[in-house]
Amino acid sequence: MKLVCDGLDLSEAIMQVNRGVSTKTTNPILEGIKLTADEDYLMLSATDLELSIEKKIRANIKIEGETVVPGRLFSEFIKKLNNEQIELDLNETNVLSVLYTDSCGKIQCLNSEEFPNIKKYDYEDSFEIKQKDLKNIINKSVFAVATNDVRPILKGCLLEIEDDKIKLIALDGYRLALTKSKIKNASKNLSVVVPAKSLKEIASFLEENDNIVKIYLQKNSLMIEIDNVKITTRLLDGEFINYSQIIPSNFTSTVIINKGQLEDAIERASLLSRVDKGNLIKFDIKEKVLQLLGKSEIADINEKITISLKGNDLVIGFNVKYFSDALRTITDEFIKLNFTSIIAPCVITGVDENGSDKSEFLHLILPVRII
Amino acid sequence: MKLVCDGLDLSEAIMQVNRGVSTKTTNPILEGIKLTADEDYLMLSATDLELSIEKKIRANIKIEGETVVPGRLFSEFIKKLNNEQIELDLNETNVLSVLYTDSCGKIQCLNSEEFPNIKKYDYEDSFEIKQKDLKNIINKSVFAVATNDVRPILKGCLLEIEDDKIKLIALDGYRLALTKSKIKNASKNLSVVVPAKSLKEIASFLEENDNIVKIYLQKNSLMIEIDNVKITTRLLDGEFINYSQIIPSNFTSTVIINKGQLEDAIERASLLSRVDKGNLIKFDIKEKVLQLLGKSEIADINEKITISLKGNDLVIGFNVKYFSDALRTITDEFIKLNFTSIIAPCVITGVDENGSDKSEFLHLILPVRII
Repeated sequence: MKLVCDGLDLSEAIMQVNRGVSTKTTNPILEGIKLTADEDYLMLSATDLELSIEKKIRANIKIEGETVVPGRLFSEFIKKLNNEQIELDLNETNVLSVLYTDSCGKIQCLNSEEFPNIKKYDYEDSFEIKQKDLKNIINKSVFAVATNDVRPILKGCLLEIEDDKIKLIALDGYRLALTKSKIKNASKNLSVVVPAKSLKEIASFLEENDNIVKIYLQKNSLMIEIDNVKITTRLLDGEFINYSQIIPSNFTSTVIINKGQLEDAIERASLLSRVDKGNLIKFDIKEKVLQLLGKSEIADINEKITISLKGNDLVIGFNVKYFSDALRTITDEFIKLNFTSIIAPCVITGVDENGSDKSEFLHLILPVRII
Repeated sequence: MKLVCDGLDLSEAIMQVNRGVSTKTTNPILEGIKLTADEDYLMLSATDLELSIEKKIRANIKIEGETVVPGRLFSEFIKKLNNEQIELDLNETNVLSVLYTDSCGKIQCLNSEEFPNIKKYDYEDSFEIKQKDLKNIINKSVFAVATNDVRPILKGCLLEIEDDKIKLIALDGYRLALTKSKIKNASKNLSVVVPAKSLKEIASFLEENDNIVKIYLQKNSLMIEIDNVKITTRLLDGEFINYSQIIPSNFTSTVIINKGQLEDAIERASLLSRVDKGNLIKFDIKEKVLQLLGKSEIADINEKITISLKGNDLVIGFNVKYFSDALRTITDEFIKLNFTSIIAPCVITGVDENGSDKSEFLHLILPVRII
């Protein structure tokens, strides 16, 4: 392999592909970036067996070939070069010379035959969505996935396509987050479970703009191409929980509250109540005031927030972390907290200026027994 | 103790004083901030027994008194309030109520009698220096202090006052950094050793401006007041190394080199050579070129930089970390590397456009045997 390419192009591509490099692995080949010099381009690829990231850049190929460079070392090294032109030259003992001006760095590479094959699928289904919408629904749901391995399927988000709508649902047994958005040109209705880690990586490539991205789906794989970076992820096998059964629809107390005020109060309560890791806060809801009560060994807090309440008074306890996680994702000025009883979940929804429900998101949080 | 004060004033003062709170201590009282309400002000103080930070803010004192709040909890909590007015009210069981709008946080405080007394000295000596100059000489020397406890005196910087000049010297047995600046109104010539940690904290309060700060000195204490924050540090006991004996003054090879080029090359060499933690780089100096050679198990590097050399050719080895630490502090475009032999230290100095020495700084780095 021998080629000349633009230093900035190479540096940018490595930074992007490097996100796919395994960080926790016992297999050194997965810590590598595969370089493939072919025709008039250099292809860079990385995979952790679940997620794969690939990017092509233009290059003047003198000798075709391929190798696997140690990912972290190569990316840090190339980042420190500020040369317009870089020559890469692989010798017969798999040592890659990086040539710039009069200087040269040499790196021992790994055997490219040991690098896992990134499968190419014939994708049957697809849909289109704005970059900012996809980024938005991922960031506002993915935090609620399970982090332990008790039920591996819950480490993913359920992605549901129904006509011109997409829903993304995450739940961990204590809380649930659901987000919705519009899509276009969906080939058919379907539902799959996407690993949360892959969704987070995809979101990191998405910009806050109206550009359309196309998502390709197939029985066990999802692929998306964002600005010439191709990201492929394995889908999770198994049945997701029937989430719609969990969400109550009749409530006995409904509170409309300023989201910013609640969030600030919860942050302070969280601080003072987490000292002994109990994380418990009580909501004491009366006609016009929600009182937030928290307590730890060395501190306690009593916050009062003005609300509008329809229905019954209620005293109910929550793990403060679940509330702050959910509130952090909400950008609305006012929200609705819906309750049924002290042992039933709280459902958080959006509300427009007339007090009507908005439906872009829904959070559900299980209460903690306080008696 | 009972008082009302401005929320922003309190928040800012806590953030400043909090830098003096001990983080690694087995004594909980040192993790606290002492509050003293007296006359028309609230005084906040923190100490780790070596360094003390104090700040007074205006307050409407209703009942005088004092207590010690848990530092981290109190500062995080106050930071999260955005109220113009905050009321602090201490009850007879040493619980501090923080009252804001209709809400209230309560924090169990510690016994202020256990808080160490921050000694007040009658300072005999003093000098004046521009904030930016003091910040500059600290940041450009303090990195070279010893980090282990073999010779405790080397964990400080030697501060020498001679007429209208200050010198700050740090050394750790492998390298030395010396910086100089002008001062005013020095009461007399003297030299003391200031703990590096205290100097770093002082530097963090200093701004890049021409405002004059006054430094007070006494046998075993140094005090400085920056923007109403009073910082006091203990001085180190004992004899500092006679550093001027270590610095050679006759050289057989002198190189003038572009500092940025050398720094970039050294950063890359550092990356590729530190893989097996050897950190060794070789300088191969010939008539017009300095070659930088580094090697590790899986990589090696050969960088060429154009230089002007007076004197003999030389091949000499260094720990690359010492070079990059020193170069990072230098802002000059060109520097001079002075050598005597492959076992004698390299002396780095500034150089003006005529090739003459500048004397604001001097770095000395011991070589590593390469044969």
